[in-house]
Amino acid sequence: MSLGGIASTFKFLREITMTTPNASMANLDPVQLDEKDSLRHMRQRFHLPEDVIYLDGNSLGPASHAALAALKQAAHEEWAEGLIRSWNTAGWFNLPKTLGTRIAPLVGAAPEQLIVCDTVTLNLYKLLHAALTLRPGRRHIVAEASSFPTDLYIAQGVARHFPGVELKLSGRDADTLEELIDEDTAVVLINHVDYRSGVLQNMAALTATAHQAGALVVWDLCHSVGAMPIELDACQVDFAVGCTYKYLNGGPGAPALAYVAHRHHSHLDQPLAGWWGHARPFDFETDFTPAPGVQSLQTSTQAMLSMRCLDGALSDWAEVDLQALRKKSLQLTQYFMDLVGARLSAYPLQCITPKEPKLRGSQVSIQFEHAYPLVQALIARGVIGDFRAPDVMRFGFTPLYLGFEDVARAVDILQELLETEAWQDPAYAVRQAVT
Amino acid sequence: MSLGGIASTFKFLREITMTTPNASMANLDPVQLDEKDSLRHMRQRFHLPEDVIYLDGNSLGPASHAALAALKQAAHEEWAEGLIRSWNTAGWFNLPKTLGTRIAPLVGAAPEQLIVCDTVTLNLYKLLHAALTLRPGRRHIVAEASSFPTDLYIAQGVARHFPGVELKLSGRDADTLEELIDEDTAVVLINHVDYRSGVLQNMAALTATAHQAGALVVWDLCHSVGAMPIELDACQVDFAVGCTYKYLNGGPGAPALAYVAHRHHSHLDQPLAGWWGHARPFDFETDFTPAPGVQSLQTSTQAMLSMRCLDGALSDWAEVDLQALRKKSLQLTQYFMDLVGARLSAYPLQCITPKEPKLRGSQVSIQFEHAYPLVQALIARGVIGDFRAPDVMRFGFTPLYLGFEDVARAVDILQELLETEAWQDPAYAVRQAVT
Repeated sequence: MSLGGIASTFKFLREITMTTPNASMANLDPVQLDEKDSLRHMRQRFHLPEDVIYLDGNSLGPASHAALAALKQAAHEEWAEGLIRSWNTAGWFNLPKTLGTRIAPLVGAAPEQLIVCDTVTLNLYKLLHAALTLRPGRRHIVAEASSFPTDLYIAQGVARHFPGVELKLSGRDADTLEELIDEDTAVVLINHVDYRSGVLQNMAALTATAHQAGALVVWDLCHSVGAMPIELDACQVDFAVGCTYKYLNGGPGAPALAYVAHRHHSHLDQPLAGWWGHARPFDFETDFTPAPGVQSLQTSTQAMLSMRCLDGALSDWAEVDLQALRKKSLQLTQYFMDLVGARLSAYPLQCITPKEPKLRGSQVSIQFEHAYPLVQALIARGVIGDFRAPDVMRFGFTPLYLGFEDVARAVDILQELLETEAWQDPAYAVRQAVT
Repeated sequence: MSLGGIASTFKFLREITMTTPNASMANLDPVQLDEKDSLRHMRQRFHLPEDVIYLDGNSLGPASHAALAALKQAAHEEWAEGLIRSWNTAGWFNLPKTLGTRIAPLVGAAPEQLIVCDTVTLNLYKLLHAALTLRPGRRHIVAEASSFPTDLYIAQGVARHFPGVELKLSGRDADTLEELIDEDTAVVLINHVDYRSGVLQNMAALTATAHQAGALVVWDLCHSVGAMPIELDACQVDFAVGCTYKYLNGGPGAPALAYVAHRHHSHLDQPLAGWWGHARPFDFETDFTPAPGVQSLQTSTQAMLSMRCLDGALSDWAEVDLQALRKKSLQLTQYFMDLVGARLSAYPLQCITPKEPKLRGSQVSIQFEHAYPLVQALIARGVIGDFRAPDVMRFGFTPLYLGFEDVARAVDILQELLETEAWQDPAYAVRQAVT
């Protein structure tokens, strides 16, 4: 397995994956696997288009019937009929907090530590600012060069406000995060699952490393929340952000989550101060007095239709066993990797997602020189994955609505496209705005 | 007319309103007024609940059939069926720009100067930061103490990033904005229509005053966009923000607009840098390179369901004559004021909205010691206005869906409640979360 253009932080994975092979699933019958699936009944909760195998739920989750119903209710009953009264009668005003409470068990957080508002990037701005304020005099924000780029852009934006503070990146300024974390580190920003490779980081270990150096941590859960159990409180995490429109299926661009550990609530300082984060918003005071805890992270009026849609989507999660979710996720990704390995070894496909279960999230990423047109050809055949520059095909495996037959069928189609070279059709090379 | 607790900036209004009385409309027949209304046909575009006279469209506009249809299409066809493909096929990715283009004629802006994203407060943060960066060495942000409070909170948040910069307020540090604007002023932040009193500021004059002192201006259009013609380009405005869920009826918490005059596009600097504001977002580069012009104001993925709902709402605006809109708006507010003046002079109601047309927006605000329970009693009778602390009843008059019969009926009910003192029912004194 060659690691090509992927940052050197993945080097260590090669050894681990080579020493811990899993028994191959390639010869297992997908129908039997589906029959034994304890989460199989969840599939019917979703609207899934016909003739589509959706392997992009790690980018945008599909619509659940509950989400669509909540959206309809919010639009017709709450907005059109209830009008302004719905801020009280439909619970709109408390929804950022209510949604935080619903997500808390999915990330291992005791109540009152989560809020849902704005976007991941904006919440990162608030939390990185809060972290730097808690560690005055320390000069470094530490992150991975392979982070989802918006994390790096906003970290640069925050750093500007603190004289002398700069962003240090593993994969650029050093090989690993651990090498960069020292007494100059104010905060470490870590992507729990890497958006491109699918590599899962060790939350407990890296948080402990940061804390030993006196630094704080911000975990970006975009590619892990809803894909596996997460233990923010148990890992002593300080801050976290996460996306609700991927594995949580909240709808396109649904507002983001933010987590602040209780111990930081009384010292939370962030500059995006708006009236929703005020202790008494309807007193219309001239000066800002922050609301207690995570409520002060709110800036202003949220896109309520999108919030209520997420509210509906979250109702399906109350009954999901997160251990069963993780088990199935690992089976789905392994099944895909094993089928590709067994049947497509003649092609120059390089899997950059670790085979070792504890090192991967819920996606499989494959490097291929002609990844872009091949992904387009797959989409044209109903297998929806996505492309990540420069040469990665990304396939998300979401346990709530995907089955093993979906995986087997996707590999069939991938094999067919490679054998026929159908992906060489020039139409597939035309770049779309969103790739 | 006593001005009670309202800031001293309103003092000058008393003289003007006393010297320019309008011919009273109190004796006009509302049925005849409605028959002559050139915008009457627009009412059928909206879903208005039965038995409600909605005088709170200045807080949350009602649902139009077009908005609800766009939302349904976005949810069912684009999200549920189209899934990730809709970023390209449904134009989601360009929607912030598309919506900006649709709003441009409503604010007198040539193309490419508007974008729709995030919230008013967040867009103010970006634009105040950009303005301060363009005026290095100047130490003051000037605003009104009577500004909508979130404007002041976020201005304080921005000021923290510029050593020595502070917020100077008319109504606290001086009587008027003009007295505060000098060679130390970096930027003047002005609410076009005051959210509480309904006072309309002179955009051309105040912008010129600021420019003469070498300062920039940011206009907050929350309570004017969709209520009157606005001439941002003609007035040489530098920056503006505005709300889309009030007079534009975009849906609860619909994303906000931001305007940047062409001449500032090449020097636009704001710290909320995210991947949507990057020149090449899908190249996933490590360093931030801003997209050209207003596109760099985008931070990250927007709440698309709310964006598409706004998209639908804006489709009704293409055919609206803004001069006719303003004319009707002034007639509606005058009719209300004249009816209250003629019929309710025995009660201690104090109108704090100017009678002079060029000095008022599209709302009428009345001070009354027991404003809170009286507003609750009105709502219980189907007349929905709102309360603003400490003692203001606020009534919005929106020309697209309100008629003169609505106004007359609202005054009938107000009179009845005052005569019977029905508002003294203890139930009306119980504070709701959102007031």
